[in-house]
Amino acid sequence: MDRDNILLTPGPLTTSLRTKLAMLKDWGSWDADFNALTARVRRGLLDILHAGDSHVVVPLQGSGTFSVEAAVATVVPRDGHLLVLDNGAYCKRMAKLATLMGRRTTVLSFAEDGPVDPALLAQRLAEDPSITHVGLIHCETGTGVVNPLAEVAAICEAAGRGLIVDAMSSFAALPIDARTVRFDALVAASGKCLEGVPGMGFVFLRRSILDGCAGRSHSLAMDLHDQHHYMERTGQWRFTPPTHVVAALACALDQYEEEGGQPARLARYTANFDTLVAGMAALGFGTFLAPEYLSPIIVTFLAPADARYDFKAFYAGAKAHGFMLYPGKLTEVETFRVGCIGAIGPKEMQQAVDAVAHTLAGMGLSRAD
Amino acid sequence: MDRDNILLTPGPLTTSLRTKLAMLKDWGSWDADFNALTARVRRGLLDILHAGDSHVVVPLQGSGTFSVEAAVATVVPRDGHLLVLDNGAYCKRMAKLATLMGRRTTVLSFAEDGPVDPALLAQRLAEDPSITHVGLIHCETGTGVVNPLAEVAAICEAAGRGLIVDAMSSFAALPIDARTVRFDALVAASGKCLEGVPGMGFVFLRRSILDGCAGRSHSLAMDLHDQHHYMERTGQWRFTPPTHVVAALACALDQYEEEGGQPARLARYTANFDTLVAGMAALGFGTFLAPEYLSPIIVTFLAPADARYDFKAFYAGAKAHGFMLYPGKLTEVETFRVGCIGAIGPKEMQQAVDAVAHTLAGMGLSRAD
Ligand SMILES: Cc1ncc(COP(=O)(O)O)c(C=O)c1O
Ligand SMILES: Cc1ncc(COP(=O)(O)O)c(C=O)c1O
Repeated sequence: MDRDNILLTPGPLTTSLRTKLAMLKDWGSWDADFNALTARVRRGLLDILHAGDSHVVVPLQGSGTFSVEAAVATVVPRDGHLLVLDNGAYCKRMAKLATLMGRRTTVLSFAEDGPVDPALLAQRLAEDPSITHVGLIHCETGTGVVNPLAEVAAICEAAGRGLIVDAMSSFAALPIDARTVRFDALVAASGKCLEGVPGMGFVFLRRSILDGCAGRSHSLAMDLHDQHHYMERTGQWRFTPPTHVVAALACALDQYEEEGGQPARLARYTANFDTLVAGMAALGFGTFLAPEYLSPIIVTFLAPADARYDFKAFYAGAKAHGFMLYPGKLTEVETFRVGCIGAIGPKEMQQAVDAVAHTLAGMGLSRAD
Repeated sequence: MDRDNILLTPGPLTTSLRTKLAMLKDWGSWDADFNALTARVRRGLLDILHAGDSHVVVPLQGSGTFSVEAAVATVVPRDGHLLVLDNGAYCKRMAKLATLMGRRTTVLSFAEDGPVDPALLAQRLAEDPSITHVGLIHCETGTGVVNPLAEVAAICEAAGRGLIVDAMSSFAALPIDARTVRFDALVAASGKCLEGVPGMGFVFLRRSILDGCAGRSHSLAMDLHDQHHYMERTGQWRFTPPTHVVAALACALDQYEEEGGQPARLARYTANFDTLVAGMAALGFGTFLAPEYLSPIIVTFLAPADARYDFKAFYAGAKAHGFMLYPGKLTEVETFRVGCIGAIGPKEMQQAVDAVAHTLAGMGLSRAD
């Protein structure tokens, strides 16, 4: 009766029981055992990007947005100029937080139903030498579209500009290789494709820019240079770490490596995605994005046009069948989202599709279209 | 063999198994069930201060320092002037983060071995009308000294200045009554005397100042006005909440209320404190503070002057016996600290004193003095 519902959301998501069991212990945040746990997590994170030689990784307390804000505050000089490539809600959030903290910020807007265009970026950088940094969302979770990280990175490198990547929902699932893709900062968090629990983010910082980052942040808590410096010196976090969240992440990393790392994780998510999209198509659900832009992270589906459809009731119906869907984040079109990520496989995804079918039928609809 | 060590630290601290077991479930952060959990926590927190009529409480992701920074950023206007009453390390941290974010900040210094002096505050406020807000640490955890909150609050109220209280290590243990003590903001966190796990803080904000706080924060993530507004409107957190930490806190609040609330918690911590101080005195350990300034939160002990004493070895010895002590935070005197808080009672405290005795003997010392 009290079996957990499965979360088809882009984090918090369903984690394994083993990951949750890792939280049944209290760690002293000052203790060598906990320092070893932090070091293990940092090593594992660097390995995922093959970034051990080129970057450091700095964990930060808080949700993912805290780490995005910390990355901008630490990497963009106070007199810098950030160009944010905008094709969705999380892009707009990065621009908003950069503006609020007083960094000069320009938004380059693209349509929400496709990736950003690297050619337009190259053109803008050529036109405006005042731009010091570019902000990119790798997978824009608002729709699920994946942006061309490698192309954008190459353009930034050629133009001599810094790049800040929000890879919150793609990190550890989509391939990213720091040996071939150059970025100044890349941000992700514990509770996404690593399948940890939420409560901390982390930022990869290019070693060669580190020294220049000292004293840039207006925020003590979000100063990644200071956080890194202290951690290197002491092995500890500057302020109280979310010890149970860190322990869960270390355990989730063990499972990630045992599963086969990024290729295996992507393969499982792709199987989830294939099951989901095929099953939903059979029920008449179309996707917001054209097929070539879909990602195995999260899929935005168009809501049925029928007047009997109502998201609240649809959500409640799927939940009663054991599955938690996610609302859409678009203002113009009525949509809902289904995450493909978390400690689930195609079996659970098929059950989810079946739950959607029952829910639809319960609303008096035989099909969505 | 794998029994957990007991943490005699001021957070993270030892939590009950029941609290940790509450983390064995994944919650959808968008879901009504989780919103109910958040609402339950907020209600419970307000009840502890009898603040339901006068204040709201705004939870925030991150460690306690994030909430202190957010309180200053949200409450002190950009052209305001914060006077920090300084008698220890956490006071200095508040002054530092206020200065960094660009708020005019003045430090009024007091000796570390006693409480701040309200008379000197009154005098300074009379002399300097530009001071808009006062910052006070209720229990300065660096030494354990408790500052005179009620007197400071009365002086601020009479002088028409705002008051920001960092009650991180005292909240829920020492009595604070918002019906008689006036403050604009009071900050605490999940992993201290509420005996939850670390990962979130919360700030009580006086209702009558709320509207004026809009747009003050330079930080998106730390804007408590925005966080509150969004939460009131949707029942949700603005950004991904640390769901498992919130669930643990809700469970810890249940246990707090079952135990008898603040009076019962203080009584248990006082019993811990009495056992600790008496036991350590019998071993020849003196306290850094005079007896009248000691608090049942954390006690700073003077290290033995004997050359055979070494904190690292002392720490390792106590740990081998199952107890984790805490280093001192003073620069002038060699000390160590022992926390009285957490899900432990006088029985565990007596065991800890015995562990210290064995450790001391192992160093070849029969007594500390
Ligand atoms: C691409 C992206 N950026 C930022 C965030 C914000 O993370 P959080 O909600 O943990 O603050 C998310 C969360 O889903 C995300 O998908
Ligand atoms: C009085 C006081 N203020 C602030 C803090 C900082 O909290 P955190 O380490 O969670 O950032 C602490 C932590 O012990 C504290 O005792």
